[in-house]
Amino acid sequence: MSRFHWTCESTDGAARAGMLHTSHGPVATPTFMPVGTVGTVKAMTMDAVRSTGAGIVLGNTYHLMLRPGAERVQQLGGLHKFMDWSGPILTDSGGFQVMSLGALRKLDQDGVTFKSHIDGSTHRLTPESSTDIQHKLDATITMCFDECPALPAAPEAIAASMRLSMRWAARSREAFIPRAGYGQFGIVQGGTETDLRAESVKALTDIGFEGYAIGGLAVGEGQELMFSTLDTTVPLMPTNAPRYLMGVGTPDDLLGSVMRGVDMFDCVMPTRAGRTARAYTERGTLNLRNARHANDARPISPHCDCLACTRHSRAYLHHLFRANEILGPMLLTWHNIAYYQRLMRQIRAAILEGQLEALATRLRAEWAAEDWTEDEMPQPHIPPVA
Amino acid sequence: MSRFHWTCESTDGAARAGMLHTSHGPVATPTFMPVGTVGTVKAMTMDAVRSTGAGIVLGNTYHLMLRPGAERVQQLGGLHKFMDWSGPILTDSGGFQVMSLGALRKLDQDGVTFKSHIDGSTHRLTPESSTDIQHKLDATITMCFDECPALPAAPEAIAASMRLSMRWAARSREAFIPRAGYGQFGIVQGGTETDLRAESVKALTDIGFEGYAIGGLAVGEGQELMFSTLDTTVPLMPTNAPRYLMGVGTPDDLLGSVMRGVDMFDCVMPTRAGRTARAYTERGTLNLRNARHANDARPISPHCDCLACTRHSRAYLHHLFRANEILGPMLLTWHNIAYYQRLMRQIRAAILEGQLEALATRLRAEWAAEDWTEDEMPQPHIPPVA
Repeated sequence: MSRFHWTCESTDGAARAGMLHTSHGPVATPTFMPVGTVGTVKAMTMDAVRSTGAGIVLGNTYHLMLRPGAERVQQLGGLHKFMDWSGPILTDSGGFQVMSLGALRKLDQDGVTFKSHIDGSTHRLTPESSTDIQHKLDATITMCFDECPALPAAPEAIAASMRLSMRWAARSREAFIPRAGYGQFGIVQGGTETDLRAESVKALTDIGFEGYAIGGLAVGEGQELMFSTLDTTVPLMPTNAPRYLMGVGTPDDLLGSVMRGVDMFDCVMPTRAGRTARAYTERGTLNLRNARHANDARPISPHCDCLACTRHSRAYLHHLFRANEILGPMLLTWHNIAYYQRLMRQIRAAILEGQLEALATRLRAEWAAEDWTEDEMPQPHIPPVA
Repeated sequence: MSRFHWTCESTDGAARAGMLHTSHGPVATPTFMPVGTVGTVKAMTMDAVRSTGAGIVLGNTYHLMLRPGAERVQQLGGLHKFMDWSGPILTDSGGFQVMSLGALRKLDQDGVTFKSHIDGSTHRLTPESSTDIQHKLDATITMCFDECPALPAAPEAIAASMRLSMRWAARSREAFIPRAGYGQFGIVQGGTETDLRAESVKALTDIGFEGYAIGGLAVGEGQELMFSTLDTTVPLMPTNAPRYLMGVGTPDDLLGSVMRGVDMFDCVMPTRAGRTARAYTERGTLNLRNARHANDARPISPHCDCLACTRHSRAYLHHLFRANEILGPMLLTWHNIAYYQRLMRQIRAAILEGQLEALATRLRAEWAAEDWTEDEMPQPHIPPVA
């Protein structure tokens, strides 16, 4: 097994098309990682996830340490075997989830003590224990344990939090056990403060990681501020390592971030939307509970090869959601992940051809357009059955 | 398209192995029909249903007429296209569901008026409208509209109800539009009264149907009384037409009923059990929420080729149910339907070989046995990942 590394195949402006080489196989970048919080991408079989072309999935340290427990997953052969995913898995460090527990957590310089959202029992995460848990889960990519403040916050609070995260990053690196094809990513913090982000990048590159994530964005600051932060932060990051923007985002967020030099993403949006009848398409989003879909024999999208679009009408999806049938979330989550993967493939192909600006113009115009008209996507001829 | 008919390939005692020929393809009998109440076998894609070897599925007139409506399904190309099932579909008539509405329904000689369980709106079913709805759904097999009394009931009440159902059967037959490869089944009623069952069989065969169902059983009378009713009723039924025992049952119910000459079954048990963590296996049922499965790296069953058993451990299934993840019901419903289909294939093969008694002895002994020991099914060797 060769070392964990990322190679750049082509650039187009700041955007990069590359290949991530790992112990669990290669991943073409830019890439979107479906979120498999507790060892399952909600409402999907892993065969369905594979069918969308997804190359890497995400697991959550916080959730998995509480249930079923890292030791148990290790005993059962690791997270890959447990969830039936032989490709790479990235695990977050638990820092973000613990932060969002609010009053249920208590921070000190050494780590965080918190109460489980499941049974209220007390647990503790430190850079060392988070790294150890991710090792037990057999994460292909381990994330540093960090502290992630909610925005907006005072610059001094963001600075103090960032510096704590940098000390924790050094301890996380110390605790990481190098293995061929496995990597660990540092997480750049510093809110939307340019100088703090720069200081954070410097601290992490001085330590040295296999990849670098941008944390603490997409926490309420808005797309404009997120993009401007990327504009000043990404150029400071190493060019020979993958860049991962955590917890982002909408299709437009992904496009804009790739154009600013980001390679990797994860977000619950497509899976969560799939459970609430919202479909992502080339023409923006559709709510399949809407009565206008009740008699529509057309697929969600004419461009999609997912099970929902190749076998079923919008009318059927509408019916499933109205009847609260499990198959509704199953089919629509599949569709949304298929859309996100298709979008990333389109973006990657455009980078390789030096056509990303043209693609971006076209994608944005389409997202802003109305749903396909009957002229653009005619009602299919339904042959008499039998 | 040839006519709808059933051919007998072999008998073993009263049991029959045969082939049902329909407009939507052939079905090997004995067969178990997964229940697709509102146009979906709950928590399964139709690809998953197909993978289990299921040959025919069931839809519910009552549910489909209320949502999405029979006209809508017809407009969209029929139930086969709507739910992505090109094989035969049998639809019940709505009689049983309406009966179970209790106070919400009002019976008269012409039909039943009832209130929707969804929105309380008033609807009416008659033999004519039920048959028409099933026609609009494009049911391969249409069921007669009947009245199904709850047991126990006074013999006079059962007799009156049965005679009403027989008059309704004649009207259902009158309303049925014959089409090549499509069939209609009469439903034998009469509770557990031998003479009433005989009178009902006579009434239905005088009318003449493509198949004959036995209704009004498995409604609380117990297996012994159900079997004794089959013992006296089935021999009176035509030998050249399929026999369908409605709403039955456990694996042991299916075996005993096949041995009494029944060819077709439907039941929500395997699908419902799959949503509540109960697994059917060769060794009886398992509750996967039980703590003893938490560290068990073995599959649910060593004999099963479903996705749950070929890719995942009991520990993973246990985890999914504990975490209330949708994938738990998805995988376990798949497993249970796979078990039911495997059971029917075993039974059919044994009939063809004249070995049904021997199989029955072996199956019953296994069902009564404890779960596989570690000697019988060792914990799998888990190779180090990567």
